[in-house]
Amino acid sequence: MRGRPSHGLQRLSRILARTERGLVDPRTEGRSRWRSRAVLEVDGERGLGPVVAMVAVDRLCERLRRCGIVIAAIRNSNHLGMLAYYVEAIASQGAIGIAMSSSEALVHPYGGTRALLGTNPIAIAVPTGNRPFVLDLATSVVSMGKIHHFAASGKTLEEGWARDAQGRPTTNAEAAKTGSIAPFGGAKGYGLGLAIELMLAALVDSTLAPDIHGTLDAELPCTKGDLLVAIDTSSSRGVGDRLLQYLDQIRCSEPADPETPIRVPGDGAASRASAALRDGFSVDPRLWRELNCLSRPHIPARVGIVP
Amino acid sequence: MRGRPSHGLQRLSRILARTERGLVDPRTEGRSRWRSRAVLEVDGERGLGPVVAMVAVDRLCERLRRCGIVIAAIRNSNHLGMLAYYVEAIASQGAIGIAMSSSEALVHPYGGTRALLGTNPIAIAVPTGNRPFVLDLATSVVSMGKIHHFAASGKTLEEGWARDAQGRPTTNAEAAKTGSIAPFGGAKGYGLGLAIELMLAALVDSTLAPDIHGTLDAELPCTKGDLLVAIDTSSSRGVGDRLLQYLDQIRCSEPADPETPIRVPGDGAASRASAALRDGFSVDPRLWRELNCLSRPHIPARVGIVP
Repeated sequence: MRGRPSHGLQRLSRILARTERGLVDPRTEGRSRWRSRAVLEVDGERGLGPVVAMVAVDRLCERLRRCGIVIAAIRNSNHLGMLAYYVEAIASQGAIGIAMSSSEALVHPYGGTRALLGTNPIAIAVPTGNRPFVLDLATSVVSMGKIHHFAASGKTLEEGWARDAQGRPTTNAEAAKTGSIAPFGGAKGYGLGLAIELMLAALVDSTLAPDIHGTLDAELPCTKGDLLVAIDTSSSRGVGDRLLQYLDQIRCSEPADPETPIRVPGDGAASRASAALRDGFSVDPRLWRELNCLSRPHIPARVGIVP
Repeated sequence: MRGRPSHGLQRLSRILARTERGLVDPRTEGRSRWRSRAVLEVDGERGLGPVVAMVAVDRLCERLRRCGIVIAAIRNSNHLGMLAYYVEAIASQGAIGIAMSSSEALVHPYGGTRALLGTNPIAIAVPTGNRPFVLDLATSVVSMGKIHHFAASGKTLEEGWARDAQGRPTTNAEAAKTGSIAPFGGAKGYGLGLAIELMLAALVDSTLAPDIHGTLDAELPCTKGDLLVAIDTSSSRGVGDRLLQYLDQIRCSEPADPETPIRVPGDGAASRASAALRDGFSVDPRLWRELNCLSRPHIPARVGIVP
């Protein structure tokens, strides 16, 4: 609905395959204990990523007012889908939400040629006067999902996006699938992705990217980690409206290209989601057939619009 | 000593001018109280940035083991110098350190033309087997200090770095001084800088970039905010050595340019600092004369090496 097909329905078949093989336990909500006053340690018990994470969000919120800042370190859980969802849930409680995840090694270091870092996404939500500000980004220049999409449609990659399995620069999407993606923003984006990788390993005691598996396959246990942070903002009354005015000042400021107004992170996703709620949304025909094969009885193939 | 002249001795004259005008109170350590169990609220009382921040670090560390995660929200304090210093102090206690600061509006939004965001730096330190991993970056593509340095030496800026006061792209460093700098990493770096801006305003109740002053001038009170976070890692025993091995795996991996080995953030600063401790370091001759004018009695002008 938000226009992020790589994190939506597309993952359903793999979740079911993982469930059938016992790599996902759809009944558990995970098991957690407070490691210290403000740190929740979560063993996901191979549960569904969203189920385990939302139970963790609820537990964090119980201690949020008293502690002011709380963090959950989640291991042994499955893929979360998009991180924006969890930080929005935290922001709906009037708190800043931060989420980070590690992943399989897909990204090469700045100046490097080999896939050694995860795409290590981070999401941040800050409550404002109405809907929260929501940032959700991978620390790679593009997602591996986009590389696969380019390969499937025979499109050429932009220069600098990827390297092939031998470490050579390539614009061939097919060759990039077995190679590596560049970090975003050169040395700085590489540094940020690496910092996220290290924080996750240190706090979750999860494996590092070269040993992570289970988010892209249906054969192996999931060994990545997740961090969820909530920070109370209730002591700063009235600040939400100030933030809202500031974001509008940015949106209304003079753009470089008169045809392209300035956006605030989350604007695009929010407008696509409300359009989808109103008008329905498109599902890729191949995916629709795939989903239909999973369903008993079959859903009539009304491809294109799901009301 | 680390090769960051913009954040070192160069700031001394301004600190003294601010002190003479009462904008800096060099005697106070600031006043703080625990807003909740894990959130320290600090009124810097116009104190020296490093003094106020280091007292806050000490107070954070008192509660670190019990709470697991603690945060200080600092307002009414002066410029901190480089953020790496504080996160290293936290990492020396075996904890992850994160620091963020807001600043004057110097950066334009992605796709924009006007200076509306601060350079909003973030530093992250993670303890490893020996010295910590340290990342310290501004969310602008270059610092305003670098623009000034290019202007002073008559050098041309790279395309895409800056815009002039009318919002037009420029490679003229002199014109860029009154204009704006691009965010690093396109839309993603812009989003990260904006998220830092909003988190600071929400938690510190400081002003937003367009109303921030006092870090670049000697006339106005300092209205930016600082956040310091410490996260205990003592429950993850043995992880430090794993992180160290991983960082070495990255350093030793095949580089894109055989002449340029891959670096980990902080490597350059650490090697420059140890060279400076051994051999001394260079001070710009103009700065040396300026510092001499501040000193009674004058220091003999042994420009170039300070043992």
